[in-house]
Amino acid sequence: MKAEIIAIGTEILLGHIVNTNAAFLSQKLAELGIDVYYHTTAGDNPERLAEAIKRAMSRSNIVITSGGLGPTVDDITAAAIAKVVGKKLLDEAVVIKNNVGTAPGLIVEYTGSVVICLPGPPRELEPMFINDIIPYLKRVNSRLSMVNSIIRSRVIKLTGIPEIDVDRKAKDILSLKPPTTVGIYAKLGEVDLKIMSKADNEAKALKAIRPIEKKIHSRFKDYIFGYDADTLEGAVGAILTKKKKTLAVAESCTGGLISNRITNISGSSKYFLGGVIAYSNELKENILGVSRQFIRKYGAVSKEVALDMAKGVRFLTRADIGVAVTGIAGPGGGTKAKPVGLVYVALTLGKKVIVKELRLRGAREDIKFKTSQIALNMLRLNV
Amino acid sequence: MKAEIIAIGTEILLGHIVNTNAAFLSQKLAELGIDVYYHTTAGDNPERLAEAIKRAMSRSNIVITSGGLGPTVDDITAAAIAKVVGKKLLDEAVVIKNNVGTAPGLIVEYTGSVVICLPGPPRELEPMFINDIIPYLKRVNSRLSMVNSIIRSRVIKLTGIPEIDVDRKAKDILSLKPPTTVGIYAKLGEVDLKIMSKADNEAKALKAIRPIEKKIHSRFKDYIFGYDADTLEGAVGAILTKKKKTLAVAESCTGGLISNRITNISGSSKYFLGGVIAYSNELKENILGVSRQFIRKYGAVSKEVALDMAKGVRFLTRADIGVAVTGIAGPGGGTKAKPVGLVYVALTLGKKVIVKELRLRGAREDIKFKTSQIALNMLRLNV
Repeated sequence: MKAEIIAIGTEILLGHIVNTNAAFLSQKLAELGIDVYYHTTAGDNPERLAEAIKRAMSRSNIVITSGGLGPTVDDITAAAIAKVVGKKLLDEAVVIKNNVGTAPGLIVEYTGSVVICLPGPPRELEPMFINDIIPYLKRVNSRLSMVNSIIRSRVIKLTGIPEIDVDRKAKDILSLKPPTTVGIYAKLGEVDLKIMSKADNEAKALKAIRPIEKKIHSRFKDYIFGYDADTLEGAVGAILTKKKKTLAVAESCTGGLISNRITNISGSSKYFLGGVIAYSNELKENILGVSRQFIRKYGAVSKEVALDMAKGVRFLTRADIGVAVTGIAGPGGGTKAKPVGLVYVALTLGKKVIVKELRLRGAREDIKFKTSQIALNMLRLNV
Repeated sequence: MKAEIIAIGTEILLGHIVNTNAAFLSQKLAELGIDVYYHTTAGDNPERLAEAIKRAMSRSNIVITSGGLGPTVDDITAAAIAKVVGKKLLDEAVVIKNNVGTAPGLIVEYTGSVVICLPGPPRELEPMFINDIIPYLKRVNSRLSMVNSIIRSRVIKLTGIPEIDVDRKAKDILSLKPPTTVGIYAKLGEVDLKIMSKADNEAKALKAIRPIEKKIHSRFKDYIFGYDADTLEGAVGAILTKKKKTLAVAESCTGGLISNRITNISGSSKYFLGGVIAYSNELKENILGVSRQFIRKYGAVSKEVALDMAKGVRFLTRADIGVAVTGIAGPGGGTKAKPVGLVYVALTLGKKVIVKELRLRGAREDIKFKTSQIALNMLRLNV
């Protein structure tokens, strides 16, 4: 089966909102083995919308619209569909209940194709699609007794290695041809490899994925911190839980980001005791007990101070592990000797002590994030 | 002038990436007074892509493509355009330099319409569009001596008031008809009102915006924390800078998020001294000096402990202002008496002391964010 997705709304054409529904619907349709050939966005203009729906119906079995539904004035979608299929068919449409918002959805069947209309807000569209539309599409599928292929995927998440090195090391894997392919996606401080396989059924797809996953695993080993929806902070949490270790964090330039990420994990209170955000030198000295002489001699952004901060927060909180960062996130505050992006990350587990010097690039928030990524990865690899 | 945007890439049709380029390009085109009638996404299939480009060129003056360019194998866009306009015209195309990535852009002019091809990654596309394409479109505009209308907008940002109340209080404003309209956009802990005006020139557009902005201002006053690209943490920073006050933060359930947001503002080291993330009760007692009796009697999530934390962090850091939060972010850890979403926020400026009890809903990260939003807003309104 072929599908098309039509987003409706002038606010999308004006760039006020990003059309995330198209990505959500596409993912779900791919999982069902339904090919998506086009996304279209049309505004609140009835003629242009009717034209878009008509064209989509002429070339696809399934047309899914998002937005343009409402209990009030702007119920433009129903009007456009009536133009294409006639008012009578529209009256026979199946109504899909919306438990979150006010605008119900619609399913209109029309000589070999089906138009599914959903409301625009993702928190309304998503549960309606999952609870009502997926079961409906499965029924349609079996009714038409089409043998369909499905797509399964596996995301392998790496950190601590630049995209260019992943690319080089995985050239052969990245040039695999369908039905099983691998894509590379670079994010801030992370590179993902996504294996995708199209097959008649789930078992076959998974069977095709497994050997490639194995190959990637043997090639990238320790760079891999997780799979699919895993996060680096979640991986760190799992390790700390398993090893029954507690953690405390002292942050300067990251300003709370590391602790914030750690505490995004539900249950983090089991291993995360807390931390100190020592933005001023006074707090580094007074709370963390960093040597004033060190700050004078080496500067607040130095290996020595980072290590003193890590030791200090570990001592203060009696945690098993102390992590600390100090650096210059910019855009101001850099000098020739200590430029923006210079960051030190220190880790102490008592006997074992590690300090890393980083030279990072990017905007303030990028430098903060990359630092947090490297600090979390040091924890993952050394605890 | 009419424009269409075509995104190219199977990864978009599979839902792996969200097409943010369409929103970026649409916004910029609206500012230039160019109407965008359609967004389309096509995959890496040459026939379907050529068909999409051909259709777009038949109904619009400007067609902008993103993605599908490359120095290597998958330079599918150029092939598709050659199919539509012929190889000769493609050879005459203007090449746009890409200073960030490897794939250059293209401008192809063809009997009354122009196709502009840009690479897919936003950090390549965006500077190319701003530096090269906008000046080019302005030249085309004046060459065709079309009198164009332009769009100007003004976003007014509110917090501390639910969307439903903004909607009710602004019913008349929200139902204004073109050329000047107002939209409402609800975000987590924030509601935006966006005034948009279409006019022959900038002065006229701004003149139409001004009285509506005034009306909104007089109706929502203190709920307004900023305009356009302003952030709440930036507004707080501006107030602290102006009043020459220093701040320290003690966080329990927000786990560093408040400090993180404050330190996202460049120059925050002038007013932000630091903070303590007191996740465990021991840290609340040992570092912040929260009364052990209070914790026993009222519990760690209580008005009394929140206030003690705020006072404690103010005393510890010698800041002018202390802010503290303690609560249950969930999904675990709630009881009947103290459910998930119960949060206390305390603020002390020395003599003046405020504590707020919140009952929040949502996932863990939503509760963290809403709490940070309310804490920052308390600072904004009370410093």
